[in-house]
Amino acid sequence: MYHLIKNQGRARRGEIITPHGTIQTPAFMNVATCGAIKGAVSALDLKELRCQVQLCNTYHLHLRPGDENVKKLGGLHEFTRWDGPILTDSGGFQVFSLAKLRNIKEEGVTFASHIDGHRIFMGPEESMTIQSNLGSTIAMAFDECIENPAEYDYTKRSCDRTYRWLCRCKNKMRELNSLETTINKKQMLFGINQGSTYDDLRIEHMKRIRELDLDGYAVGGLAVGESAEEMYHILDVVGEHMPEDKPRYLMGVGTPVNILEAVYRGIDMFDCVMPTRNARHANVFTWSGRRNMNNEKYSLDTEPLDNECDCPVCRNFTRAYIRHLFKSGEMLAMRLCVMHNVYFYNTLLMRIREALDEDRYEQFYLHYRDILDKRI
Amino acid sequence: MYHLIKNQGRARRGEIITPHGTIQTPAFMNVATCGAIKGAVSALDLKELRCQVQLCNTYHLHLRPGDENVKKLGGLHEFTRWDGPILTDSGGFQVFSLAKLRNIKEEGVTFASHIDGHRIFMGPEESMTIQSNLGSTIAMAFDECIENPAEYDYTKRSCDRTYRWLCRCKNKMRELNSLETTINKKQMLFGINQGSTYDDLRIEHMKRIRELDLDGYAVGGLAVGESAEEMYHILDVVGEHMPEDKPRYLMGVGTPVNILEAVYRGIDMFDCVMPTRNARHANVFTWSGRRNMNNEKYSLDTEPLDNECDCPVCRNFTRAYIRHLFKSGEMLAMRLCVMHNVYFYNTLLMRIREALDEDRYEQFYLHYRDILDKRI
Repeated sequence: MYHLIKNQGRARRGEIITPHGTIQTPAFMNVATCGAIKGAVSALDLKELRCQVQLCNTYHLHLRPGDENVKKLGGLHEFTRWDGPILTDSGGFQVFSLAKLRNIKEEGVTFASHIDGHRIFMGPEESMTIQSNLGSTIAMAFDECIENPAEYDYTKRSCDRTYRWLCRCKNKMRELNSLETTINKKQMLFGINQGSTYDDLRIEHMKRIRELDLDGYAVGGLAVGESAEEMYHILDVVGEHMPEDKPRYLMGVGTPVNILEAVYRGIDMFDCVMPTRNARHANVFTWSGRRNMNNEKYSLDTEPLDNECDCPVCRNFTRAYIRHLFKSGEMLAMRLCVMHNVYFYNTLLMRIREALDEDRYEQFYLHYRDILDKRI
Repeated sequence: MYHLIKNQGRARRGEIITPHGTIQTPAFMNVATCGAIKGAVSALDLKELRCQVQLCNTYHLHLRPGDENVKKLGGLHEFTRWDGPILTDSGGFQVFSLAKLRNIKEEGVTFASHIDGHRIFMGPEESMTIQSNLGSTIAMAFDECIENPAEYDYTKRSCDRTYRWLCRCKNKMRELNSLETTINKKQMLFGINQGSTYDDLRIEHMKRIRELDLDGYAVGGLAVGESAEEMYHILDVVGEHMPEDKPRYLMGVGTPVNILEAVYRGIDMFDCVMPTRNARHANVFTWSGRRNMNNEKYSLDTEPLDNECDCPVCRNFTRAYIRHLFKSGEMLAMRLCVMHNVYFYNTLLMRIREALDEDRYEQFYLHYRDILDKRI
């Protein structure tokens, strides 16, 4: 259940009450694709990193270790030992981006596993069943995620099908939540708005899916090739038609500035691999901009990654040590930078919430908009 | 300073008082080659893993980031953030095992860096200077580590040279410890017994080096090709001639059973890459024997790695989850197994000390000797 605490302009301060705890929004969700955050970070580390929500990938877990095995092992909470809210995506995005030899029909999609090539069928019912087996807090609807730019006619037909798939998801989820053997009988379902960069298709699709009265609504199909300005424009256009009393999730976004801009436009939830992926390539986020820790200039630098940060890494280690670890190929380099970046993202959202609480989000947004994506 | 608390047979329970804290012996030293334990484990994790001593490699740190840089950064304690005792090896073992195109003369060894091939000279004075720059608690003498089997005549000449090198190490260390700019002016120096598998050469060398009244004595040149029985025999033979009032360190050893056997023969200190290297290959040590976590039989196993273990990993994660992480190529798999194995080794030594304290080491040794190296 979503509770809107207050607005500042279109920006929203709220909370989502779930069976696994309350999520303070705006919130960042930390990506743990295969049930672990990449970079040797475990559920034991997450509380200290201000994580509120862990996001796991349905497609990956279906292939390995298999969602039925995860169910036998007690579900994702038991398996990963994270006891807070977990969101699972629908598998759709990976089916359309990672898997090979796709074949899309009304029933669903047949595709070849990226691991061993074996043929798999996934439709709305299969995606709901897998997510029910995983026992996540929030399940995402199975949709077609099309690349930008896309043809208008194809996008329109795809939106229609994605709407029909959503109706099937809702029915299947209701059925699964009523079964005795289901791990989380209160699993929530979010619908996903599609429509590429076509205003009319986006609006029409949003109007139709809001009628289904789901637990939340995501904006999907963005950050897949279009410009940041196009993305912000879609948020402006779609935002007006999203229900006020449901959480709004912008999928797969983004840089710190993308997040500032999207919160400004009313988004409540985010997820992105950027903090972890960048960290593994020695790129760290700071309150003064981004640093590349491979840079020679850090070789004798005894400052922490970020002077303004109080994460466990910045409280203990120097830039010189972390640069040395990267140069020596030590895994610890990645772990330390992943921890820092995850903390940075979760703290960014915490500071956004504090600014909203204190009615100064506009100033916060204007101040950091010109700083956070800068390379220093 | 070494304090012998008690004996049980030849086994010794003692403590080594150092400027960075007291080491309870017998002790295992945890290998942090480049200043970090491989497997994404940091100094912040070590206390929880019952680590007493961190061991860093002189050769690696001399090449990268450079010992003079480490000195500028405040020494290894400041650099790695480990505030307990640190032992540095002399670089000798790596010069003789890793480096290419060696040329040994009375002055020292010229060799090519394994990183970029550039020519480097290292002799006793250079090794002491590097270790002084690193600021470790205990420095090891620069010696020639010869492979087994070795020719008698070569071994004899090598032992003579290693003795002359040791005298030069002692003089150089005294000089370095008296300098104003030295980080650790109380740096301790351990000598290293050599002599391959020749009893007479081992004994003669030990008798000569004990006269130098160093802070401790290591048995080197073992676990480099000879059988376990030959190693134990050398410990029997040399042990008689090692001073009672100095710590005894068996370098680079070994399996849990090797350690039980060596403690039985009076050894106080150990180091080995086995707990970390094995962990990275999914091999874990338990109180019932060794497991390979890639094994299919663990895929639905909800037990911890070791039912008898209370490490942070065993208190939280299942075999099924850890196997899944290995299969998915997640770094976290390595971190969790390294943490477990490091804890296991440090706990093994703790339990050895408890058994000695309670005069039941013989029973402890006889019980676990047949169990710990077994594959289960």
